[in-house]
Amino acid sequence: MLRIITQQADVVSELQRICERTHDEQVFNKEATVREVLLSVKNQGDKAVLHYTAEFDHQTLEPGELRVKGSEMDVAYQQISKDLLASIKLACERIEAFHRQRVPKTWVHFGEDEVVLGKRYTPVDRAGLYIPGGRACYPSTVLMNAIPAKVAGVPRIVMVTPPGRDKVINPAVLVAAQEAGVAEIYRIGGSQAIAALAYGTETIPKVDVITGPGNIYVTLAKKLVYGTVGIDSLAGPSEVLIIADETANPKHVAADMLAQAEHDPMAAAILLTTDTGLAKKVQLEVDRQLVDHPRRIDTEKAIAHYGLVVIVESLEAAAEFSNMFAPEHLELEVKDPWSLIEHIRHAGAIFLGDSTPEAVGDYLAGPNHTLPTSGAARYASALCVETFLKHSSIIQYSRGALAKVASAISTLAMAEGLPSHADSVRIRFDADG
Amino acid sequence: MLRIITQQADVVSELQRICERTHDEQVFNKEATVREVLLSVKNQGDKAVLHYTAEFDHQTLEPGELRVKGSEMDVAYQQISKDLLASIKLACERIEAFHRQRVPKTWVHFGEDEVVLGKRYTPVDRAGLYIPGGRACYPSTVLMNAIPAKVAGVPRIVMVTPPGRDKVINPAVLVAAQEAGVAEIYRIGGSQAIAALAYGTETIPKVDVITGPGNIYVTLAKKLVYGTVGIDSLAGPSEVLIIADETANPKHVAADMLAQAEHDPMAAAILLTTDTGLAKKVQLEVDRQLVDHPRRIDTEKAIAHYGLVVIVESLEAAAEFSNMFAPEHLELEVKDPWSLIEHIRHAGAIFLGDSTPEAVGDYLAGPNHTLPTSGAARYASALCVETFLKHSSIIQYSRGALAKVASAISTLAMAEGLPSHADSVRIRFDADG
Repeated sequence: MLRIITQQADVVSELQRICERTHDEQVFNKEATVREVLLSVKNQGDKAVLHYTAEFDHQTLEPGELRVKGSEMDVAYQQISKDLLASIKLACERIEAFHRQRVPKTWVHFGEDEVVLGKRYTPVDRAGLYIPGGRACYPSTVLMNAIPAKVAGVPRIVMVTPPGRDKVINPAVLVAAQEAGVAEIYRIGGSQAIAALAYGTETIPKVDVITGPGNIYVTLAKKLVYGTVGIDSLAGPSEVLIIADETANPKHVAADMLAQAEHDPMAAAILLTTDTGLAKKVQLEVDRQLVDHPRRIDTEKAIAHYGLVVIVESLEAAAEFSNMFAPEHLELEVKDPWSLIEHIRHAGAIFLGDSTPEAVGDYLAGPNHTLPTSGAARYASALCVETFLKHSSIIQYSRGALAKVASAISTLAMAEGLPSHADSVRIRFDADG
Repeated sequence: MLRIITQQADVVSELQRICERTHDEQVFNKEATVREVLLSVKNQGDKAVLHYTAEFDHQTLEPGELRVKGSEMDVAYQQISKDLLASIKLACERIEAFHRQRVPKTWVHFGEDEVVLGKRYTPVDRAGLYIPGGRACYPSTVLMNAIPAKVAGVPRIVMVTPPGRDKVINPAVLVAAQEAGVAEIYRIGGSQAIAALAYGTETIPKVDVITGPGNIYVTLAKKLVYGTVGIDSLAGPSEVLIIADETANPKHVAADMLAQAEHDPMAAAILLTTDTGLAKKVQLEVDRQLVDHPRRIDTEKAIAHYGLVVIVESLEAAAEFSNMFAPEHLELEVKDPWSLIEHIRHAGAIFLGDSTPEAVGDYLAGPNHTLPTSGAARYASALCVETFLKHSSIIQYSRGALAKVASAISTLAMAEGLPSHADSVRIRFDADG
């Protein structure tokens, strides 16, 4: 049963326990395996990728089978329902419309003395998208990773996803890829797929940035290859924190908590409320809605271990607890969410009001559903177009402008013990320079 | 002596060798040490920090001595020259002016059916700046890290830098900190300083993002704590790539190459030129300018191992080699740099024309001098205000808007095997919901 607590001291320690539920210890144990996979793929290419696909995914592939064929895409379109295709198209449109807003653009500023400064934005050459597979099927993850890369103008977008039984990729995933503009898909997964994207193999191109969620092996591999390539983030289990007052509907709050808990036994669902009555109703409602849940056991586990209701003194106090937790998803189920938002400093995405369940953002509101977890919202943001862009600083000085700062540069360079830095300016004004 | 090569095949392998000069093998050896330091500081706080400061920096500190006092700041101002203070102030102004341009701002968009979408930008609560010390003194590094954090609006900016002999911090570094608005400075360095910032100790606050360059131990520590905190990048040895045609001045080109090489025996200086005559003149000029160099031995090492001149067929070919290398600093010493820049896809900072030596950007042009190295410009950018900002997605749907997408959300949720996601929307339209 969903626990309700009220003591301030308990709240802080409980929130911390839940926030840190992906523990480092887990990581140390698996790191040796992942390092071995990375090194093997780096040195042996396709051969190692095929070896680990047989070992971990139990699928025996030939090199020629790695890439998904156009004919498989055609079959996928025939396999999914019209409704699903229409829903994927709707999500595509809305996600693309949102991501096209406020994309940073190259600018130059012309200052005094013919000084030109600016920033020049360019996309990465190649992006690699990791899409989890196996039993799961996440077309929405395809859209949320591929569309920002497409909007950024990435010339080559490569997707990898582990093969299911009989080497098959879920048709909804293939259709989502096609709709989002991804034409190059390889049926590989796990840390061997991350290694292939980071180092390249005979078949799989080396990319510049790798995005997308995965299990602990995928996440560890992303951390280890960071520096060789860019990565989006280190994804942990999902979480929602709901702040609710007496105007909130307990059935809706309970449903939103369960929508989070059903993801994973490690998922977290937290309610902070000023209303003790609401707390008790949500507790009962969660139990009631769990009865017929098709994934009842895992969902119950998440609720039991990482579910929590906290009775708070005020909405401001709730906001402070929320800032401490820095949730991936934050729902404000209160009378005036736009006032409360002013007290929020850290959250991946904020859902305002009773008609904005997290699910609307998960699928099609437009903002990205790849969000910082486990407190990373203190310093990180949603996956976005900028994940696939970088900028070069632009500097042009005129001779006159350089003359004016020559002495200051020389002073600073000499203070830092870098005489050639000073010389490189001075020599431009030498009589024989 | 600076080598000159012309063969296409050699160029690719040489550029790759230089680009990858920070080799992973180095890292494996030192990782155990760094892990031990991180764990000790996490578990034992100040005690461990003081222990490693004695062991690695040879300075015996009491906990009360960790933080730099206001009186030390006053002394620092008396110790530096008026010229140096004026130069620091000038650099401060120009860096701040550049970083204040185009800072992303919170926005909301009001769409159909009362749908509100947007992005809300907020600074991190606490930033930790690492400034290298010991024999070196880098006031410019202080400005380049502190000013973006200040412009981002970070409420608490903490700086760490290792103590020199007699526990002293270089006065120019202290003055730069004060001028840039940093009031909280601790005299600690190395991986123990990164650990203190990542986990917090009795004296040193836990921060949200750590920036700034350091040696291999600092860089390794930053990689290992990434995920617990945000980091700016993994800094490698510095590098410049110069593209020059027959209009370039060989003395200036040589001076700019040496200004890079003097940093570090691992620094790289590469010239790509269409003009064989220029190549030979630069080769001689580098030798000539090295004769009296105060850091001749280290600078010669860098030139010998990681210096290179390549004769190319055209400026476009030079641009392609440069894109392959993705240099930290790129100088375009050609007749028409603004045409050539169109062929450049990857570079940390681009310096246009003969009157823009890299040193102007290192110190005071305005753009940040913390730039991606070792090919990271393929996917990464300069340190910037955004390093200290993050955004929360904003989503508000009306009941009418939710009704229109309810069926699409349900279809997608059921395809992904997440029934509670569908329920969380459906329940809002139930007769008794």
